[in-house]
Amino acid sequence: MTKPADDHSWGSTAFLLAQVGAYAAEAFRARVSRLELTPAQAGLLRMLARIPGRSQRAYATYLGMPPSRFVMMVDALEDRGVLERRRGTDDRRANELHLTPTGHRLMRELGAVARSHESDLLAALKPSEQRGLRELLVRVAEAQGLTPGAHPGYRTKPHTE
Amino acid sequence: MTKPADDHSWGSTAFLLAQVGAYAAEAFRARVSRLELTPAQAGLLRMLARIPGRSQRAYATYLGMPPSRFVMMVDALEDRGVLERRRGTDDRRANELHLTPTGHRLMRELGAVARSHESDLLAALKPSEQRGLRELLVRVAEAQGLTPGAHPGYRTKPHTE
Repeated sequence: MTKPADDHSWGSTAFLLAQVGAYAAEAFRARVSRLELTPAQAGLLRMLARIPGRSQRAYATYLGMPPSRFVMMVDALEDRGVLERRRGTDDRRANELHLTPTGHRLMRELGAVARSHESDLLAALKPSEQRGLRELLVRVAEAQGLTPGAHPGYRTKPHTE
Repeated sequence: MTKPADDHSWGSTAFLLAQVGAYAAEAFRARVSRLELTPAQAGLLRMLARIPGRSQRAYATYLGMPPSRFVMMVDALEDRGVLERRRGTDDRRANELHLTPTGHRLMRELGAVARSHESDLLAALKPSEQRGLRELLVRVAEAQGLTPGAHPGYRTKPHTE
């Protein structure tokens, strides 16, 4: 069966979003696996770089991850020396999370990987079209009440950890 | 931790595509489950409605599904009276797949569900913007060599069956 070439064969725009989105997620997973990171770990590192020093509970809630799964992920990253738990300044019983110098170096590598992924994925679009696509996606995401930087897969899929 | 509101907090456009795509896929899964269909079954029904009468092997290859998983899916839909296997006209050993009248009725319900899903998902965008989004997604999908109508999840994820 040859690939039908007409526009209609791509299905609805909602289907296209799901299809291209799943393709993008899988391509990203393959790329960050070379840094021995899962997509959820990459998401947490990015969040720690942007908003450091919050409690474990705050990050887990924000990313929509079950606490037990989140703690396992933090344990693994702490064992690698990528992040550290520090006694809370406000609440001494709560651990605040921070990137270590190793973690900041890894973040720079991760940033380069993410930029390659983005430019390969969107190579067919001109810069103005890439901006247009982004703006439309942000509006859809906002209207649907999605949380910036929190992939729905963090919540449910063990293999994205 | 409150949701950061700046545009940058949404991450890369590639991430946004993965995030909105996963959200769209999950919303679709929830909707078609009310018709007792999985997303992959819905994808096959749509394909049978558009291009009927090909061999099981042709559909499985096109959708990128392992043959054993595909046969189980066809068995389940045949048991429900939604599709039927007919002896091949060209190759009498190959079974051709066709929707039954029940299957055509189910397809009409599925079409209505897909249209509601689409209009709810894209409610924030004007019709011209929806067309613009679609055009950009088709170009990205074509450039990446994706197969029209075949979600990558059909290939790998048991829970999408």
